[in-house]
Amino acid sequence: MPDANAAIEYARKHKDESLRSLKDLLRIPSVSTLPEHKQDIDRAAHWLADTLNELGFSNVEIIPTAKHPVVCGEHLEAGADAPTLLVYGHYDVQPADPEDLWHTPPFEPTEKDDNLYARGGSDMKGQIVAHLQAVRAMTETGDLPVNLRYMLEGEEEIGSPNLLDFIRQNQDRLKADLCLNLDAGILAPDVPAITYALRGLSYLEIRLQGTEGDLHSGRFGGVVDNPAQVLAHLLHGLKDREGKIQLSGFYDDVRPLSDEEREQLAKLPQDEAWWKEQAGAEELFGEPEYSAVERATARPTLDVNGLLSGFTGEGSKTVLPAKAMAKVSMRLVPDQSPAKVEESMRQYLEQNVPPTMTWELVSHAGSPPGIMERDSKAVAAATKAFEAVWGKPPLFTREGGTVPVVGHIQEQLGLESLLLGFGLPDDNLHAPNEKFHLPNFYRGIETYIHFSHQIAAS
Amino acid sequence: MPDANAAIEYARKHKDESLRSLKDLLRIPSVSTLPEHKQDIDRAAHWLADTLNELGFSNVEIIPTAKHPVVCGEHLEAGADAPTLLVYGHYDVQPADPEDLWHTPPFEPTEKDDNLYARGGSDMKGQIVAHLQAVRAMTETGDLPVNLRYMLEGEEEIGSPNLLDFIRQNQDRLKADLCLNLDAGILAPDVPAITYALRGLSYLEIRLQGTEGDLHSGRFGGVVDNPAQVLAHLLHGLKDREGKIQLSGFYDDVRPLSDEEREQLAKLPQDEAWWKEQAGAEELFGEPEYSAVERATARPTLDVNGLLSGFTGEGSKTVLPAKAMAKVSMRLVPDQSPAKVEESMRQYLEQNVPPTMTWELVSHAGSPPGIMERDSKAVAAATKAFEAVWGKPPLFTREGGTVPVVGHIQEQLGLESLLLGFGLPDDNLHAPNEKFHLPNFYRGIETYIHFSHQIAAS
Repeated sequence: MPDANAAIEYARKHKDESLRSLKDLLRIPSVSTLPEHKQDIDRAAHWLADTLNELGFSNVEIIPTAKHPVVCGEHLEAGADAPTLLVYGHYDVQPADPEDLWHTPPFEPTEKDDNLYARGGSDMKGQIVAHLQAVRAMTETGDLPVNLRYMLEGEEEIGSPNLLDFIRQNQDRLKADLCLNLDAGILAPDVPAITYALRGLSYLEIRLQGTEGDLHSGRFGGVVDNPAQVLAHLLHGLKDREGKIQLSGFYDDVRPLSDEEREQLAKLPQDEAWWKEQAGAEELFGEPEYSAVERATARPTLDVNGLLSGFTGEGSKTVLPAKAMAKVSMRLVPDQSPAKVEESMRQYLEQNVPPTMTWELVSHAGSPPGIMERDSKAVAAATKAFEAVWGKPPLFTREGGTVPVVGHIQEQLGLESLLLGFGLPDDNLHAPNEKFHLPNFYRGIETYIHFSHQIAAS
Repeated sequence: MPDANAAIEYARKHKDESLRSLKDLLRIPSVSTLPEHKQDIDRAAHWLADTLNELGFSNVEIIPTAKHPVVCGEHLEAGADAPTLLVYGHYDVQPADPEDLWHTPPFEPTEKDDNLYARGGSDMKGQIVAHLQAVRAMTETGDLPVNLRYMLEGEEEIGSPNLLDFIRQNQDRLKADLCLNLDAGILAPDVPAITYALRGLSYLEIRLQGTEGDLHSGRFGGVVDNPAQVLAHLLHGLKDREGKIQLSGFYDDVRPLSDEEREQLAKLPQDEAWWKEQAGAEELFGEPEYSAVERATARPTLDVNGLLSGFTGEGSKTVLPAKAMAKVSMRLVPDQSPAKVEESMRQYLEQNVPPTMTWELVSHAGSPPGIMERDSKAVAAATKAFEAVWGKPPLFTREGGTVPVVGHIQEQLGLESLLLGFGLPDDNLHAPNEKFHLPNFYRGIETYIHFSHQIAAS
């Protein structure tokens, strides 16, 4: 079995080439949400397919979906005994606006100090090119120690509307032992980390309707109930001022945190001051018996994401609104189920909406929480790869957000996902002046090389 | 002193002329809120000034304000012993949109059954022309029994932004004994009524801000407080589910309803079924110990008029909002004061907004409640006028809404306002297919003639 050294050496000698390759991909403004960038999406897909072909992948295809295509390709020459990884990434990016807040052109990658500024650098073309360059280093210097199947989608930034169907329809093409999800990050330039758990999501919309149309609040104020006020009563009852969610049975399936895990989480460089700074908040909030990092990543929560009712323009309009709407989402932890909390919300509304209102509960998203055991082979291999490159073991973090593809891949393909990527908390994802930390781009290439060898050897 | 008979006879003979005159004014689309109708506003002002001149008024002027002009004129030949009335009306109208819901062109007045369909018919060119035609009938057949000063504004439908200043700056021009406010209505075609009380208004906006910018609810949900939820808690605490407002001291200055007044109000043809039908509501709401008509007109109330926070588009966006806003207005009854309830709201926020939030309270409007004693000379004169025309006494109603000009005229000129007009509850004010009931247009002219004589004789 080949070792990693030759590939590492190759990668170090070809840093310029790796950077050039990243810049090439970043120059393609593959914004998935804007129709005027449809051609750029296709250009990015072709760029990836061409690169996979160049790297010796077979069955490389740009597979259309109802909107943007998925790029697939396979490299299965490591043999039947070697593990097969399904490599997931997305080649689409967020829009650049507001463009006037960018200090450099968003689609002209610009080096400054240790960073490369460009839309999509951290989220997540940086990781895709790092993995491709790791593959290049390995194939140029020997054989790949693992089998690879790529699945690169073009719709992540618009919520992956077609990915679940794609996975359902392409099960054979996606067969693997483990999913390597490149869409991830670490804690700081010198603090490698492995994200072993994700929160799930139940994203609901409560719609209330009182009268058929808006009324004049002078004429009807005092006799007609007000959906905006009913909504306030309902939202008031959902979560108390200590951050406890009041839905019936909400905490029943929450897996308790072990003392050992709480100790691990306490080692993360994320004290209260760090969370305040990250959020730009003067004061934090939440369950008093849990630390901030626990509350943000390992405890379930509920947030109002949006409110709308009546007149919201400048000045005054004396309207008694006919309708009120709240978007309410819950972040879930193992072993909660999105279906179960949605049902609990439905019961809450059945019990608490007064007879003056009709109501509707719309589900916009439901993703189960995910956890990869810290003593698994994949985590062990990633740990060794980080140690080899950074010279220190990674910290173990949980992610407060949700990565729906992880749930889809678990459900449809029965695969666990290992999240391994090199974004940083201050990379300005989805914001002006997105950047990618270049030293970690090169370290990332080496980490992917080491990981390939470690997982093959385990 | 002349009696009313000759004028009444004249008015009956000249119905066609009255209708033609009303149609002429209705054909001018004097929409105050739309800049493209500025010329039409000026045309309507000139039409009125020309008519006043034609009727023998002196000092007729179209007086500019920062936006739309006020039309003034005086007819002071009844002598120093006769009462002087300040006649208030507005010649601007609401926009016609949505125009596709109109069955006839909004600015081409169309007769159908007993109604004249046109934007501004009921609100309130119908009343202005009725009063002008009453003046015409009286001046053509003798002397006016009262002195008149007209003040017709062009900004009522946009909240009269310049009227208070205008009144302040034109006190001499507006001197009178009583204000006759034509912007009013009755209960049904055959149910004359006098509105003797109006509710006041305190219209406030609560603005909360947590963090500087919106955050990702996956990343920060559980550690950062949510202004939309804090807003829900605050609104929950403002009014209970029996309709009782919880602000400190809110009911202290509420003048109790006497048994006699409650009996009068109970005579109005406004039972629960009527209110449900008017509102299009399946169920009513409010203080259980008061009737619907009492709650809608003689009791104070509080309504949320608008809510806005975070993401309100289609689908989902996992945002933890930085800001939340509620527009909250209170309808006040004698002897509550807008300043006092605003101060009480400020105290409530001081005591209840948590340290995670900054807040702001913006006042958009404050109008005192108004009441004209039912045993006053003005009400007695109006009562006799209704009896003469309708053959039965009017009912006495309170109005749930607020007419800010009544407060301004009280404060600046020291004048009580008598509301005397002929709109109907189903006239589609501010909606498509606005109409004015033509039999009551003609009865209105006669009522204004009788009222002039009655008030002069009292």
